Amino acid sequence: MQTNLKIDAARLWGTLMETARFGALPGGGIKRLAASAEDKLVRDWFATACTDLGLTISIDAVGNMFARRAGKNPELPPIMMGSHLDTQPTGGKFDGILGVLAALEVVRTLIQAGFETYAPLEIVNWTNEEGARFSPAMLASGAFAGVFTPAQALSTADRDGTTLDEALQAIDYKGIIPVGGRKIHAYFELHIEQGPILEAEAHAIGIVTGVQAMRWYDVVITGQSAHTGATPMHLRKDALVGAAALALAIQAIAKAHAPLAVGSIGTLDVHPASRNTVPGEVVLSVDLRHRDDAILDVMEAQFKVQIHEIAEKYGLTATCALFWNSPAVRFDPVLIDDVRQAAAKGGYSAREIVSGAGHDAAYIARIAPSTMIFVPCAGGISHNEAESASFDDCATGAQVLLDAVLACDARRGG
Amino acid sequence: MQTNLKIDAARLWGTLMETARFGALPGGGIKRLAASAEDKLVRDWFATACTDLGLTISIDAVGNMFARRAGKNPELPPIMMGSHLDTQPTGGKFDGILGVLAALEVVRTLIQAGFETYAPLEIVNWTNEEGARFSPAMLASGAFAGVFTPAQALSTADRDGTTLDEALQAIDYKGIIPVGGRKIHAYFELHIEQGPILEAEAHAIGIVTGVQAMRWYDVVITGQSAHTGATPMHLRKDALVGAAALALAIQAIAKAHAPLAVGSIGTLDVHPASRNTVPGEVVLSVDLRHRDDAILDVMEAQFKVQIHEIAEKYGLTATCALFWNSPAVRFDPVLIDDVRQAAAKGGYSAREIVSGAGHDAAYIARIAPSTMIFVPCAGGISHNEAESASFDDCATGAQVLLDAVLACDARRGG
Repeated sequence: MQTNLKIDAARLWGTLMETARFGALPGGGIKRLAASAEDKLVRDWFATACTDLGLTISIDAVGNMFARRAGKNPELPPIMMGSHLDTQPTGGKFDGILGVLAALEVVRTLIQAGFETYAPLEIVNWTNEEGARFSPAMLASGAFAGVFTPAQALSTADRDGTTLDEALQAIDYKGIIPVGGRKIHAYFELHIEQGPILEAEAHAIGIVTGVQAMRWYDVVITGQSAHTGATPMHLRKDALVGAAALALAIQAIAKAHAPLAVGSIGTLDVHPASRNTVPGEVVLSVDLRHRDDAILDVMEAQFKVQIHEIAEKYGLTATCALFWNSPAVRFDPVLIDDVRQAAAKGGYSAREIVSGAGHDAAYIARIAPSTMIFVPCAGGISHNEAESASFDDCATGAQVLLDAVLACDARRGG
Repeated sequence: MQTNLKIDAARLWGTLMETARFGALPGGGIKRLAASAEDKLVRDWFATACTDLGLTISIDAVGNMFARRAGKNPELPPIMMGSHLDTQPTGGKFDGILGVLAALEVVRTLIQAGFETYAPLEIVNWTNEEGARFSPAMLASGAFAGVFTPAQALSTADRDGTTLDEALQAIDYKGIIPVGGRKIHAYFELHIEQGPILEAEAHAIGIVTGVQAMRWYDVVITGQSAHTGATPMHLRKDALVGAAALALAIQAIAKAHAPLAVGSIGTLDVHPASRNTVPGEVVLSVDLRHRDDAILDVMEAQFKVQIHEIAEKYGLTATCALFWNSPAVRFDPVLIDDVRQAAAKGGYSAREIVSGAGHDAAYIARIAPSTMIFVPCAGGISHNEAESASFDDCATGAQVLLDAVLACDARRGG
């Protein structure tokens, strides 16, 4: 079965621009931290938009929002589409948001056409995907998938000591339905690529086959703070010099496993941070990723050797703790093929791609067949106010989402 | 003329320990930022100690405190001794403090012996030597020496926007006498070395012949913030990688001019500082020093070449601004010889040394014959709660200060 349903590109774009005012920043981006006052505004908007369409909203105990259209067989597990409406502190207008609003556009298109799916459809807005306010990221989809208990997620505190539980109650989005524990037939998540590959190769669609493995480490390098003027070079134990050597070593490790490996230091704090004091301590975070867990094991081993050798070379001590470990994820082959066929049907240029970033779909894939659709974003820029996706690419992504969901539903009997 | 006056080592040590409670930290150090409530406590203590001895206290418009003993010829320019009582945020018990309290001990010794100097003696406590609260360092001795206008110094604000003027008024230490503009016969400053050389070579006294030239730079390295997972290594513009390369380049430059050159990065801030974002900007401070201005010129030129080459190599842009420039200082040969003779008279092991750190004496040397005396500090550690100088070394320093001051006074006719 093939439909000729077309999503309304202008309507989709309108919702993207309309909701971008909730937490709008002067530079064109959005600051909409999870369970903040701004998050409440966009949640209220989303709930109203869905109930206006006759959908049923339910909210679970970690604030995940589900907007349901029952379809012909309400007893079946739903096909779920969505992503997240929270942003980084200086985030863009598309990261996560496109996935939720494109799902809304899919449902609007179906309703307008009077098309009823065989299985129920649900649009989901996952809480705190970014991890910018409550760490780690994907906290509430993780709770839904059983990676964290709801109690763990709810007790997670932000920098001010406010827990997710308190923050959700404050904005009236601590729901009453249980977290997870129900069957989902399929999960589709449309997202901007957050990398430069599709744009560089002029593809409109990324057929996402999985999510690369990623590991986050906390490293503390300790030397000896000393006066910058009075301490000869050979008597120093400069923690920042060790950190600098480590930053270049991480580059070398990633490049040694090119082109698929990446390695980065995202945060680095110097102590005591005085112009005329040799840094005695540096605390930094390391992010290593590869789509192959075995290669990531090798990278990790090389990284640890480097920490040891650098500490020895510069007279420092160093500790390294694994903060987060996310194994490689392979998406469902049947759903991947639904996306491939949907892209082909539309005549869109597409390539297979492994997500470099973590996404809610990586956790949902543990409990249900899942996949993702990527669209390009300008310059690969994300987590940045300058993040940008084109009108056409957003529309193409939503159209492929619609066609993939309908193909999936058709297999059930739709 | 030689005297046999001996300072009281235990009394000196007692004042060091007694005043260390003003701003005491749990780790044994002191937090006594300039013109803070803790600074007021130590200033009040110092003023009381001096007036109890019959000295006359005067305070200038930038908070510098002068405690005067008139001597036989009150109309003569004074011989001045002192340093500063403010500390770093996690400073030690000796940096600056020893110089003021040893001067107090010198005067106590003279009074106890009934010894009246030919010229007036003044003990000085310079405001905000550390620069930890109000930048730059040596702000008030600089104002005294005409390097800054009093208005410039007073309008300098701390991180909270409080000006030095407001802070001094709040603790009642904005004085009424003019800043500088009067003749000083000689200035002696006793200080801990803040470096490891005297200890390593087992000298009790450093005969300080000058202060090395130092230059501070503000560097901003700009790349492109990007997602750590989704951005391939070859498409990155990682500002932190550029900063790391610069840190190692600075090491190499300093070592290329060994053993007298030093180069350091003391502060480094990463933006946006997120675990999963490639840093788009790094702001850092560089400190380059050498006792020879001409060699420092060469180091600066090499540093600027490196900034340029690193920016080019990693696809970054970088700016470098000179924040502070302090030319090399040569102390007064006659006063240096007074210190040399005083050390010899006491039979103390001594060597000539160039100060690696800036000191109030570096500014006062612009307007009056000046010199310094160094004593060892454990491990060369300073600007640190662990900063430590021994009972004996403090006493030796004070004794040499006494003898050098008396030798200087004797040349006048004392």
